[in-house]
Amino acid sequence: MNDALSIAAAVRDGKVSAVDVTEAALKRIAARDNELNCFTSVTAESAMHSAARIDGEIAQGNYPGLFAGVPFAVKNLFDVAGLTTLAGSKINAENPPAIQDATAVARLKQAGAVLVGVLNMDEYAYGFVTENSHYGATRNPHDLSRVAGGSSGGSAAAVAAGLVPLTLGSDTNGSIRVPAAFCGIFGLKPTYGRLSRAGVALFSSSFDHIGPFATSVRDIATVFDVLQGEDDRDPICTKRPCVETRNFIQNIDNLRIAIADDYFLKGANPEALAAVEKVARALDVRDYITIPEAHRARAAAFVITASEGANLHLEKLRSRPQDFDPATRDRFLAGALIPSSWYIQAQRFRKWYRDRVREIFLHVDVIIAPTTPCPAPLIGQQTMILDGEEILVRPHLGLYTQPLSFIGLPVLSVPIQQQNNLPLGVQLIAAPYNEALILQVASVLEAKGIVGAKIVDF
Amino acid sequence: MNDALSIAAAVRDGKVSAVDVTEAALKRIAARDNELNCFTSVTAESAMHSAARIDGEIAQGNYPGLFAGVPFAVKNLFDVAGLTTLAGSKINAENPPAIQDATAVARLKQAGAVLVGVLNMDEYAYGFVTENSHYGATRNPHDLSRVAGGSSGGSAAAVAAGLVPLTLGSDTNGSIRVPAAFCGIFGLKPTYGRLSRAGVALFSSSFDHIGPFATSVRDIATVFDVLQGEDDRDPICTKRPCVETRNFIQNIDNLRIAIADDYFLKGANPEALAAVEKVARALDVRDYITIPEAHRARAAAFVITASEGANLHLEKLRSRPQDFDPATRDRFLAGALIPSSWYIQAQRFRKWYRDRVREIFLHVDVIIAPTTPCPAPLIGQQTMILDGEEILVRPHLGLYTQPLSFIGLPVLSVPIQQQNNLPLGVQLIAAPYNEALILQVASVLEAKGIVGAKIVDF
Repeated sequence: MNDALSIAAAVRDGKVSAVDVTEAALKRIAARDNELNCFTSVTAESAMHSAARIDGEIAQGNYPGLFAGVPFAVKNLFDVAGLTTLAGSKINAENPPAIQDATAVARLKQAGAVLVGVLNMDEYAYGFVTENSHYGATRNPHDLSRVAGGSSGGSAAAVAAGLVPLTLGSDTNGSIRVPAAFCGIFGLKPTYGRLSRAGVALFSSSFDHIGPFATSVRDIATVFDVLQGEDDRDPICTKRPCVETRNFIQNIDNLRIAIADDYFLKGANPEALAAVEKVARALDVRDYITIPEAHRARAAAFVITASEGANLHLEKLRSRPQDFDPATRDRFLAGALIPSSWYIQAQRFRKWYRDRVREIFLHVDVIIAPTTPCPAPLIGQQTMILDGEEILVRPHLGLYTQPLSFIGLPVLSVPIQQQNNLPLGVQLIAAPYNEALILQVASVLEAKGIVGAKIVDF
Repeated sequence: MNDALSIAAAVRDGKVSAVDVTEAALKRIAARDNELNCFTSVTAESAMHSAARIDGEIAQGNYPGLFAGVPFAVKNLFDVAGLTTLAGSKINAENPPAIQDATAVARLKQAGAVLVGVLNMDEYAYGFVTENSHYGATRNPHDLSRVAGGSSGGSAAAVAAGLVPLTLGSDTNGSIRVPAAFCGIFGLKPTYGRLSRAGVALFSSSFDHIGPFATSVRDIATVFDVLQGEDDRDPICTKRPCVETRNFIQNIDNLRIAIADDYFLKGANPEALAAVEKVARALDVRDYITIPEAHRARAAAFVITASEGANLHLEKLRSRPQDFDPATRDRFLAGALIPSSWYIQAQRFRKWYRDRVREIFLHVDVIIAPTTPCPAPLIGQQTMILDGEEILVRPHLGLYTQPLSFIGLPVLSVPIQQQNNLPLGVQLIAAPYNEALILQVASVLEAKGIVGAKIVDF
């Protein structure tokens, strides 16, 4: 499958119709998704209607948008008018349908993209595996016995399986980056607050981000540009800088790039560290930088996530705990028992840590770190051996992602393909609002063939 | 005793020397403070030194400042170089002396005021009575068997007893307004964040304000002007609007003023409501306005205060609980047990409430409400009868102050003198950064003789 911008160009040039592209996507979903379990709803009818409208625009000589005729899908916590926003839960299935698209969904539609459905996730976005007890596990297209990662597992797997070239997900502690790494595609978690969260079900308000999955860096950058901009409906911030990122300067000679050492080189499988090494070598990077107290940042992220999540769902945890996914419920209940003093301490530490990391970015532009400590575990796997120790799978997949989203840094997970092996990801990290820098670096790595999406052709 | 600006004018005009003024203040303190217990330290030596320096400036023809030669004192949670900042606690007495004045102290000194000492308070500012188990209770100058209010009790009583014309205090839930009301003087709690808290011991970071006590509206406004301005040392915000407030426009005909009804007219003694009525009548105000869910705002303020306070003192609560004031310790310990979900809910409610109150201020400029539900209780009094019900004294004195500081509104407590009765206060409340409006209204009330400080002449 081609990337989204290639498809859009072909549609605009009349080489293929939006209707044909959409129909093909729906056929792929019909053929493959029973097994993969990426989608919780397919919006075939409205998709075909939108595709026909786009073909009509083109026939009339109107510009149909940057993503004309590109099929896309979104994690089922984005509002889609007419669908109930599940957020991976059974309880939310009782809600009335959304009356308005989430801002991100509306912007992609405005750019000509065609929504073909909504995607599976961990309940209330609390997890790294998308083994959802209500809607089933999403399978990793590269090995169907393995998880796709989470919580945006459906979003990553749908792209990796070639069902659609473009999806949206959300990332609180790693929920875009972890599944992007496990599924061998690109996943961008932008700066906290930079993209509108209007119409997106919350998990942990002070950490939640939305972002895209795609098969090329230029797709990621272009979606990011389309999603930027002011939004009066945004619950977090309605105004923010809006900078075009999709015209890359390929010369990155002047960028100061360093490898995160210490915490970020411990506790990983050798292959995860080899992926970082591969990226560093390709960029001729030999410098190391220490992000201090990253283990505390992760601990504080756990405390804040559990506390804010528990607060959000407290009423339902009291009145109908049996209707939660057990894995999610137990973490929320634990969160409801955390003392406020811990939460306040975690928030206080967060300020200190943000200031320290800000100082680091005076000396470096982009930091490289592994996305996950290992490739995708098996579905149902409870423990794993890391660094010689047997540890629980679920809480440890965010080892390297949590300390970064904790302070809202923009991070792109780039896919590293290992011969005959499962995909792995490497995080490219920048200071807040410097998405352009990491996209430039990724684009150079992609041009060199070091990173690249691996789509599973069935 | 004259107000601070009269004293400064007399000093500048050479009618009296700063040394004489300071000496007189020190004599009053020496004569009266054994009984009143306002001061925890008197800085006689440095005060006389400063006064002599000001007289020297005047002799040389230099401008000695707006508050030239005015004796002042500060709550003992303001850093004063060379003194240990007690914050009302026994534990903090072990700290080394401060090496730098708090910004507010430094600004008053720069304006020519002469620091004569530091003042008693509830331990860690957690209380409304200044019955400090380590340093004794501060007595109300109007009735020595009664409390001065708290937590800035020493600050209010020192002014009401005529020891000094000017003091500084802090207000988290009412700690400036309650003692100002009980002691029959003016007390201003400015907009949250507007005055620098650099060098001030914290209690509950998201609520703490500093502000002045004085005997005239012009004194309050002038101190407020002197304390305004940017401050790189401020832990909260270093920049904010800086607007001169001390040149009053006496015409307030166009101001929309209303009485807070509902919550703010319930649970008070008849005399507290009569004080509000008196102010309203003098201003020809007949409109009422409802601040919605004020009882929830107070509950949320309790939750946040106890949580943030407990977090701040957690280590000491664990290692040496016996060294806390029992009244303070028990509230902090309770705060340490509050679940984070409650704290988060209180902060979420706070945003909702702030938005509702912002809407109210589209229709009204100044709101009138009682400061306390009753005059000063007796020292040692545990319960009181309010509205026919017996309730605890300590937690209820902030009934009308807590829902306002909760969202950082500027409030001036103006003193109402009742014949042969204890003083009472009325709160004048405005939208954030509208201190000028409440000072204008207060100045009109003062000119009409409706409000005015009552100094106890011994």
